[in-house]
Amino acid sequence: MTIINSNIRKLLSPHSIAIVGATDKVHQLNGRFQYNLQKYGFRGKVFLVNPRYSQIGDQPCYPDVTNIPKEEEIDCAIILLRADQVPEALEKCAQRGIKGAIIFSGGFAEAGESGKRRNQQIREIIDKYGLAVCGPNCMGIINLPENVIAYGTLALPEDFRRGPMALISQSGGMGGLIFNRDHPLGISYVISAGNEAGLEIADFIQYLLDDPNVQAIACYAEGVKTPRKFKQVGDLALEKGKPIVVLKIGRSERGQQAAWAHTGSLTGSDSAYQALFRAKGVIRVDDMEDLFQITNLLANSRLATGDKLGIVSISGGAIGLVSDKTEELGLRLGEPSPETRAKLAELLELDTPDKVRNPVDVDGRIPARPELLRQSLEIMMDDGNFDAFIAIPIPLTLKSAAEVAQDLVELYRSSSKPLVVLWSAGPLAGEAFEILEEAGVPFFRDLDRGLKGVKALLEYSEFRRRWEAGKASALEPTPEVDRGLVDTILRGPAHVLTEAESKRLLSLYGIPVVREVPCQTVEAARDAARGLGYPVALKIDSPNIIHKTEAGGVRLGLCNDDELIEAYHAVLGGVRSYRPQAIINGVLVQPMVPPGVEVILGINYEPGLGPLVMFGAGGILTELLQDVAVRLAPITLEEAGEMIAETRISRLLQGFRGQPPADMQALTRILVRLSHLAVDLEGRVAELDINPLVVHDAGRGAVAVDALIVTQSNS
Amino acid sequence: MTIINSNIRKLLSPHSIAIVGATDKVHQLNGRFQYNLQKYGFRGKVFLVNPRYSQIGDQPCYPDVTNIPKEEEIDCAIILLRADQVPEALEKCAQRGIKGAIIFSGGFAEAGESGKRRNQQIREIIDKYGLAVCGPNCMGIINLPENVIAYGTLALPEDFRRGPMALISQSGGMGGLIFNRDHPLGISYVISAGNEAGLEIADFIQYLLDDPNVQAIACYAEGVKTPRKFKQVGDLALEKGKPIVVLKIGRSERGQQAAWAHTGSLTGSDSAYQALFRAKGVIRVDDMEDLFQITNLLANSRLATGDKLGIVSISGGAIGLVSDKTEELGLRLGEPSPETRAKLAELLELDTPDKVRNPVDVDGRIPARPELLRQSLEIMMDDGNFDAFIAIPIPLTLKSAAEVAQDLVELYRSSSKPLVVLWSAGPLAGEAFEILEEAGVPFFRDLDRGLKGVKALLEYSEFRRRWEAGKASALEPTPEVDRGLVDTILRGPAHVLTEAESKRLLSLYGIPVVREVPCQTVEAARDAARGLGYPVALKIDSPNIIHKTEAGGVRLGLCNDDELIEAYHAVLGGVRSYRPQAIINGVLVQPMVPPGVEVILGINYEPGLGPLVMFGAGGILTELLQDVAVRLAPITLEEAGEMIAETRISRLLQGFRGQPPADMQALTRILVRLSHLAVDLEGRVAELDINPLVVHDAGRGAVAVDALIVTQSNS
Repeated sequence: MTIINSNIRKLLSPHSIAIVGATDKVHQLNGRFQYNLQKYGFRGKVFLVNPRYSQIGDQPCYPDVTNIPKEEEIDCAIILLRADQVPEALEKCAQRGIKGAIIFSGGFAEAGESGKRRNQQIREIIDKYGLAVCGPNCMGIINLPENVIAYGTLALPEDFRRGPMALISQSGGMGGLIFNRDHPLGISYVISAGNEAGLEIADFIQYLLDDPNVQAIACYAEGVKTPRKFKQVGDLALEKGKPIVVLKIGRSERGQQAAWAHTGSLTGSDSAYQALFRAKGVIRVDDMEDLFQITNLLANSRLATGDKLGIVSISGGAIGLVSDKTEELGLRLGEPSPETRAKLAELLELDTPDKVRNPVDVDGRIPARPELLRQSLEIMMDDGNFDAFIAIPIPLTLKSAAEVAQDLVELYRSSSKPLVVLWSAGPLAGEAFEILEEAGVPFFRDLDRGLKGVKALLEYSEFRRRWEAGKASALEPTPEVDRGLVDTILRGPAHVLTEAESKRLLSLYGIPVVREVPCQTVEAARDAARGLGYPVALKIDSPNIIHKTEAGGVRLGLCNDDELIEAYHAVLGGVRSYRPQAIINGVLVQPMVPPGVEVILGINYEPGLGPLVMFGAGGILTELLQDVAVRLAPITLEEAGEMIAETRISRLLQGFRGQPPADMQALTRILVRLSHLAVDLEGRVAELDINPLVVHDAGRGAVAVDALIVTQSNS
Repeated sequence: MTIINSNIRKLLSPHSIAIVGATDKVHQLNGRFQYNLQKYGFRGKVFLVNPRYSQIGDQPCYPDVTNIPKEEEIDCAIILLRADQVPEALEKCAQRGIKGAIIFSGGFAEAGESGKRRNQQIREIIDKYGLAVCGPNCMGIINLPENVIAYGTLALPEDFRRGPMALISQSGGMGGLIFNRDHPLGISYVISAGNEAGLEIADFIQYLLDDPNVQAIACYAEGVKTPRKFKQVGDLALEKGKPIVVLKIGRSERGQQAAWAHTGSLTGSDSAYQALFRAKGVIRVDDMEDLFQITNLLANSRLATGDKLGIVSISGGAIGLVSDKTEELGLRLGEPSPETRAKLAELLELDTPDKVRNPVDVDGRIPARPELLRQSLEIMMDDGNFDAFIAIPIPLTLKSAAEVAQDLVELYRSSSKPLVVLWSAGPLAGEAFEILEEAGVPFFRDLDRGLKGVKALLEYSEFRRRWEAGKASALEPTPEVDRGLVDTILRGPAHVLTEAESKRLLSLYGIPVVREVPCQTVEAARDAARGLGYPVALKIDSPNIIHKTEAGGVRLGLCNDDELIEAYHAVLGGVRSYRPQAIINGVLVQPMVPPGVEVILGINYEPGLGPLVMFGAGGILTELLQDVAVRLAPITLEEAGEMIAETRISRLLQGFRGQPPADMQALTRILVRLSHLAVDLEGRVAELDINPLVVHDAGRGAVAVDALIVTQSNS
């Protein structure tokens, strides 16, 4: 990790700031930084720089940073000049010994060729002087614990609510939404990263992870500039126990184009990001409100030690909705113990304990007995069968909202488990939300977002548990591989391996492949078929035919010598007329693989992120289902199992419609081995697909029937 | 439609109200109606009834409704008694000539056996006297145009915002959320329907459709009590041009249980509801906020005459997000005309018109030139290539929010197309929202919900266009069918038809089926196979074997006499040992159907809703993809096409991976014919599945390979 931490500190926690491009019109665009620093009480010195003034108000104004008296130490410059003036100004700052800079100006990587050149100039200056630069094309930074509001907008609240969430946003506009809220969330830092010519999101995250004022970090990202760095801070965040929540655009083609036009970010393959985020327990959301509210929840909530929810609602209607939503979100509801059932049945005057359900419904009785919410929750929270709780205190009751809130605070304090309050209420809630906020009880005003928040909390909790457990256990050892044979197969310029070569390589890494006999004559093919036993498949063996089926180069289910001989001639003839120049080695004779579940396995390399391993439904279903799972390689057996469980095809593998379950053990082992191959052959293989791998019934293994490997130039 | 409209008017628009169970403690549970009627200025007379008081405050209190002076006409009673006292009180009200009643009390259909009995008693009284009853177990009604706040909660705002949206909620608690908002929406009616022992949601909708104060209706429903009635009001709503938006719980199993426990509603099959809603252009949402905000949009917005969106944003970051979301929601972006491109390029100082995109990004330039938002929108709104517009004025600029709002109002007025403003802002927006609200310009404060709203608006607009166009065109005529043959096949008690009978029935309705020859001997089978031409399939023909494959009763791809003879004996032997008592008619010999896309077609009858027709992926994909499309039968060719397009399998049918497209014409025709069969045989067929129907390449037709029909008793 190559961050010059002392310099980033000068940027984010400056004791003195020079404003390059200061103005006497503080309410105009370039005056905003001056205005905000002063308005919100920046405690350090501010130096104004602009050759057009000698004084602004009662402050001196210097023509140049070099004119500021030498004895003044300046931590950070805010540069407000036209794009073409920025490189020179930045270099002057650096020469003056200023290590941090915020470049507000636009007109760089996002602005055509000339912009890109300027961007390059800036990068060179940054590297030369080891500067910590935020921007260009950014709004600046807000450090609330130290009252540094170096941010270029007037759309800020009169008062900030301070709290443990930090926000890093590539887009100033979207980041600004955090301030434009009816219900402010407690924040510590807001950083508008802009074009990331200098520091990037990952650098800021790394810095913030060390600040005790930060408990969770929200990121709005159009791209991840250096994925490997992000991967490293992902590990750091796990070490420090501070969740990262990301809204990354570019899930769609339209979004990718927009990001490219906006900040010049290449968004990269979305599934690679997905793999990166999953590997590091980074929570991904898809809208700004979720970004803010889920990060806020994670910054404030306890973690859960399991995934079983207990829910109490005073609205039966809300329970219907929550029931649908929890099922759709895959949230698990705990089963009340017999004791809990008995207690609740008595409390709620139900005929029998069987009528107690989770979610617990105290509807109907609540107007007359407002204490039922607290009492029901108390009983539920005493029951070890639940790991986290949701209280739904809508609608308001005879008991005042403030009293209900006070009850919830007490319940929260009496337990060590998460309790999340979902309370859809506006002004009528009175001080209830203040009371909850004060006491640190997490709450949502929107049922829907609240449940998504709970899901994120439980998933992050589970990820951390697995991560803690996994720290002890090592990865499977990479199998011993015959390097000489691997080198033989892969040597030469970038090319496509034949099916036979591909399978040989897979075999070397312990991945079972269907047997095959290469034959040059029809007699050899016939003998091979007899040896393997009918029925057999016959395929063309040619380095020039990649899509064998389309070339007429595959015949399946040949039952006897006659069919084999006919097929031999048909295949050779077909391929010759399909591509007359093709080099033909002969044919491959293979036994027919008994039917099973067809899956696809693959590897790929994402620039800056390294090897990825992929799993999904095979054959035509690959594209039709479009739900492949992707992970950073290498993976563990457990991760392989998760990948499979994530995809719809897992239902087939589990034994669908009375079919016996498939050999999951074999499949997970193959996925892990493939992930080792991916790591081992980085830089030598460009991509690899096994399609299909046929998975047989449990205990009967799985076998790669076809594979396609593209090598990289290996000079 | 059997609503006694004059009586429902007495309930919803009463001039005088009797409160049965009045109290002197107006701040307690039973005092709320008294309190609210007075507080919000009910203009009619209120009579208090309770034998325990002779006077409450300065008002007389009567022991019984019959004691109220005869000359007083009373429109509506609010009954606040214990459940067991309700039936008698209701009957007394009826005898006193009171035609409307709100039964606040719980303890009916939702409360076990005794509750159900009481519910039945109430229903009998309602029927006997023709009463218009809201409830029981409800919160009451609010009629804002006439200032009738007969609602049993204290959680109401000081002032209501009046507007064209009405809300009907089965759950009082969820309905109450409409009041508990930071940003009130303009409403006209709120009706808490409760258990619907008397009036149901459809009745209330019918009434509201006639009220000019209502432009769109939101419903929170746990079930639809009389689907046929809902279907009828769906038609009425289309006639009157007033959209209905529904949040119906019970999409999940958990939700269905919750609804049953809460109001005793049987939620019914969710896909049947989906079919019902689709048929009538009812918009379905899945959370309360969407219910409120989307109904509000539809109540206030113009409709679109096409689906091509034009978007202008002043935040590049928002554009990234909007690009992802519009693609995910399937929203279509229009293509700016060359003229628009030229104008925008000039305005935004872009190098070339090619750089103009939709969404239009004015980011970066906006702080210095705040007029760009208006100017860009003006250009876009002049371009006939767009049918609806979205303006995203975040973040705030040097121009005040109020001025921006004013610009948007002017733009809105200058056009006849929808313009929706997505403006994520809190207190800093100042009066901007008031200005928009005042002028009737639809806006959302939440980007995400706003886009969902726009999607609903465009979909409803499109539905109406199709509906208007479709009013002229009639359905395809039902084919002439030989009734005698149909009767022969279906006669007898409820039973499962054999494959041969099933296919014969399908044939009668013009649905192509695979040929088959029933054979009683091995020789007959061999001759049949020779006649049809090898390869053939051989299947058991038995009325007792429904799942033929599992019984070993199917052999496919038989290539010659030897294989056929072996298969004949194997099939008969297999079935005899599988089910020794089975009656065996013999075997069916069928030609092998050439490969194609396998789909499933089905019909079903939903109680109260009538025939449904279903389409989806066939074979194993049916369950794996789980995306069937369901419609109320009969359907048009156009609807059949829509059903197919809705499912993922449509990608296969369009010609996937270089395959030729399938015969969509044949498929849609078969779907329509099946829907006619469904209508024609209602009451005689219980269910029908064709699985698979194999669809061949375009021009080559489709054929039912297997079918299962269950008849109803036909005595």
